[in-house]
Amino acid sequence: MDIMQVVSPLVCTERHPGLMHQSLRVLRDRKGKLNVAVDPSGARPGSWVFVVSGSAARWALNDQGVLTDLTIGGIIDFWDEEHGQQEIAAKAD
Amino acid sequence: MDIMQVVSPLVCTERHPGLMHQSLRVLRDRKGKLNVAVDPSGARPGSWVFVVSGSAARWALNDQGVLTDLTIGGIIDFWDEEHGQQEIAAKAD
Amino acid sequence: MDIMQVVSPLVCTERHPGLMHQSLRVLRDRKGKLNVAVDPSGARPGSWVFVVSGSAARWALNDQGVLTDLTIGGIIDFWDEEHGQQEIAAKAD
Amino acid sequence: MDIMQVVSPLVCTERHPGLMHQSLRVLRDRKGKLNVAVDPSGARPGSWVFVVSGSAARWALNDQGVLTDLTIGGIIDFWDEEHGQQEIAAKAD
Amino acid sequence: MDIMQVVSPLVCTERHPGLMHQSLRVLRDRKGKLNVAVDPSGARPGSWVFVVSGSAARWALNDQGVLTDLTIGGIIDFWDEEHGQQEIAAKAD
Repeated sequence: MDIMQVVSPLVCTERHPGLMHQSLRVLRDRKGKLNVAVDPSGARPGSWVFVVSGSAARWALNDQGVLTDLTIGGIIDFWDEEHGQQEIAAKAD
Repeated sequence: MDIMQVVSPLVCTERHPGLMHQSLRVLRDRKGKLNVAVDPSGARPGSWVFVVSGSAARWALNDQGVLTDLTIGGIIDFWDEEHGQQEIAAKAD
Repeated sequence: MDIMQVVSPLVCTERHPGLMHQSLRVLRDRKGKLNVAVDPSGARPGSWVFVVSGSAARWALNDQGVLTDLTIGGIIDFWDEEHGQQEIAAKAD
Repeated sequence: MDIMQVVSPLVCTERHPGLMHQSLRVLRDRKGKLNVAVDPSGARPGSWVFVVSGSAARWALNDQGVLTDLTIGGIIDFWDEEHGQQEIAAKAD
Repeated sequence: MDIMQVVSPLVCTERHPGLMHQSLRVLRDRKGKLNVAVDPSGARPGSWVFVVSGSAARWALNDQGVLTDLTIGGIIDFWDEEHGQQEIAAKAD
């Protein structure tokens, strides 16, 4: 799974019905590349999350028929952007 | 899902019958790389879209037997090419 | 799907039986990276093609048991190598 | 499969129920990119491991319903970080 | 499929039971990146091979339950490392 930061919601009036009413988010990875993911967890802009890709992205939703290849899997606690580590974990090790 | 811009239709006289009569589009990602996608939504050259890859690309068509690994999932409203953000969303946040 | 150019056939005396009697081709993408694909369409060296990857590559053959992750999906008409566009399409737009 | 080094555990209070009680690890590949993987083998920080991606990552757990696209497949014995080779294997060849 | 060169066997005492008794090889691609693959064909260090990735990698083994995302699909005859072409094929064209 990759680590990305939430940038903003994504507004698509014309979108595929297979996406149903899922919320879409624009995410930025650590190299600056933008991605679009389905967000079942209500992550806010600025949050650091990890994302699940490929066929597992569909498993992440209760309805397997949802059309997605990238889904937010969890919100990371206390991510230290600069050092690429969790602040707490870094202290605990 | 990735964000790309539609460049042009793609004309292939000799193509695999598994693609049926699906429209093909050449898309350019933000690094300039060209890709080919099935377009069920009628996106026009210049439109910014997000695309679904992998096995989910086949779920995006009513007929799962269609041979594709990249399908346009939606047309993005008001994409600001330079800043990589939606204009509206940027105002709303 | 990606756009690549056919370089040559690939000769493998010791190859996996799951590839059966499928023709293999060496393809070069626009960055120069070489790939190996199954070719059900008889593309000649120099042709520009688009290729289907992942699980869809197996759908591209009549026999789903064929072992491949990359299959030629179609031969592009009139590809303009330098500008990365179809000559005809460029004129028509 | 890719070769990566374990950096630390990953703490996510809000995470997808599909991940169940699986341990998550932050891994760094040889280019410095950080990844998140499910760890069924109890690898410690500093260990070199190889990871299985895609749909095979779900096969690596007894419960196929677990939501993951990256799972640690094994801990490498005696990995020589600098030369990218196993010390023992290098001696044996 | 990608073209890579066999570097060495990979010794993992602690490895996932899903890999069974399959032989593992460290492979190097043309950019120097190291990968781990299951080798059903007995390729020796120095051999040039092509590898099958994704779900097709499991199809390459008689037992689909084997945990792999990369499997050697064939050993290439007469690969010319420097020019990235088969010597024989290059002569024949």
